[in-house]
Amino acid sequence: MKLLKSHKNFNGQTQFYEHESDLTKTTMNFAVFKPDGEIKGGLIWLSGLTCNEQNFITKASAQKTLSDLGLCIICPDTSPRGLDLPNEHKDYDFGSGAGFYIDAMTPGYKEHYKMESYINQELYDLFNKEFNTSRRTSLFGHSMGGHGALTLGLKSPEKYISLSAFSPITNPTQCPWGHKAFKGYLGDSQEDWKKHDATELIKSGKKHPNPILIEQGLADEFYPDQLLTKNFEMACSESGQALHCNLQEGYDHSYYFISTFIEKHINFHFEYLKG
Amino acid sequence: MKLLKSHKNFNGQTQFYEHESDLTKTTMNFAVFKPDGEIKGGLIWLSGLTCNEQNFITKASAQKTLSDLGLCIICPDTSPRGLDLPNEHKDYDFGSGAGFYIDAMTPGYKEHYKMESYINQELYDLFNKEFNTSRRTSLFGHSMGGHGALTLGLKSPEKYISLSAFSPITNPTQCPWGHKAFKGYLGDSQEDWKKHDATELIKSGKKHPNPILIEQGLADEFYPDQLLTKNFEMACSESGQALHCNLQEGYDHSYYFISTFIEKHINFHFEYLKG
Repeated sequence: MKLLKSHKNFNGQTQFYEHESDLTKTTMNFAVFKPDGEIKGGLIWLSGLTCNEQNFITKASAQKTLSDLGLCIICPDTSPRGLDLPNEHKDYDFGSGAGFYIDAMTPGYKEHYKMESYINQELYDLFNKEFNTSRRTSLFGHSMGGHGALTLGLKSPEKYISLSAFSPITNPTQCPWGHKAFKGYLGDSQEDWKKHDATELIKSGKKHPNPILIEQGLADEFYPDQLLTKNFEMACSESGQALHCNLQEGYDHSYYFISTFIEKHINFHFEYLKG
Repeated sequence: MKLLKSHKNFNGQTQFYEHESDLTKTTMNFAVFKPDGEIKGGLIWLSGLTCNEQNFITKASAQKTLSDLGLCIICPDTSPRGLDLPNEHKDYDFGSGAGFYIDAMTPGYKEHYKMESYINQELYDLFNKEFNTSRRTSLFGHSMGGHGALTLGLKSPEKYISLSAFSPITNPTQCPWGHKAFKGYLGDSQEDWKKHDATELIKSGKKHPNPILIEQGLADEFYPDQLLTKNFEMACSESGQALHCNLQEGYDHSYYFISTFIEKHINFHFEYLKG
């Protein structure tokens, strides 16, 4: 991996890197905040549609809390870059900036859009090897990245110690964003779609040993139609998955919402990461 | 003024506005954070080269502290926009995004680039009238905006209750950024230049009744050549202007430096604003 930029920030460094990914066969970018001194654990943040590796680290106001607690964070990009696949750059909600944290199965995309494996394997291993997190890693994200955090976390609870999400897409097989992405990346089989749907994973018996934390703004322009939060709540309730779902009056889908509650989410993960 | 966007953020609203300026004869943009409840005072933030009204409000992580203390902030753009004056869009350090908070005297520019009067009159009046700050207003900024905060504040101490700056250009008559801007906006008269130079203002006897706070990173890529912090320190020391100038090891010129120390600067202003 290659360090592109490093800025002293609180008691640590906010940094930007690139590395060559064997899975996506592209150069992938990521951002990091690395506190000075002993690292108490690691957080992986998955961003939403149209974002890249920079949105969270510049806008979420997370570094003070991470610095105070001694937590390291890594923020990957949301898709491979530098390709020119069919329809890859046409819409904001498919292709570049919209990898949906799944391994694609459709022609063209299946060679590069392996975002689920990229996060679970390459990024996870690199993070734990290069940043001294002692394999104590939690997972969270926003919107499409909230979907990623819930689905990857429910499928690998041994890897991800705790899970949380801001404004997550919780039931993508039932919403327009999910339909478009899953058809484009997975084809027409509903059985394949369900493997990447947090609500369906809970219904199928997947479980995380720790409670899941969700923050959802009630003035969110995509709530409820694209996010379908209640479907996930109901599935968790029926299956016995512990869930704290906080509906917040007046907040929208933006990073101003995330920055308001980021300290609470980092503290939540810290309780599990500190062991 | 016209509200363009409003986002709930902590216990308040982060907002974006535009208004028609009589002074610049253009539409001007500004950003605001407005806490709920009683407003204890107002802060004007002046941004640096290449910035617009959005950089501070998205990157500085100031809203939590402002919300906790009940302070309102307004962040103007750094120049008029939508014009096409000679050389206005050629370089990053002159013209658009680089108004230097002075009233231009050169042909073309003098009709529109009246940023000193715009801040002191139109923006100050609008801020105090529309946002219930009770005319209790302090001034701070970054780099070119630090220069703006120091010069405008030293010339109108009755308007601006306290002054602080991150990485300010403190002696622009002696650095390349200042030479270029002052020649372009003011012409060749060194006497005109000195009226917009914080170090020269101190030397000429201007004084602020409260101590001035400066934060300067020692890994700043523009330190010392463009910023000349020591010249300002020496002038303050000789004239008896109280100054706290903190040189911070390892920090650069970026918003990661600002976010690290923004809580300290807001608390500094709050001590004077709360009365």
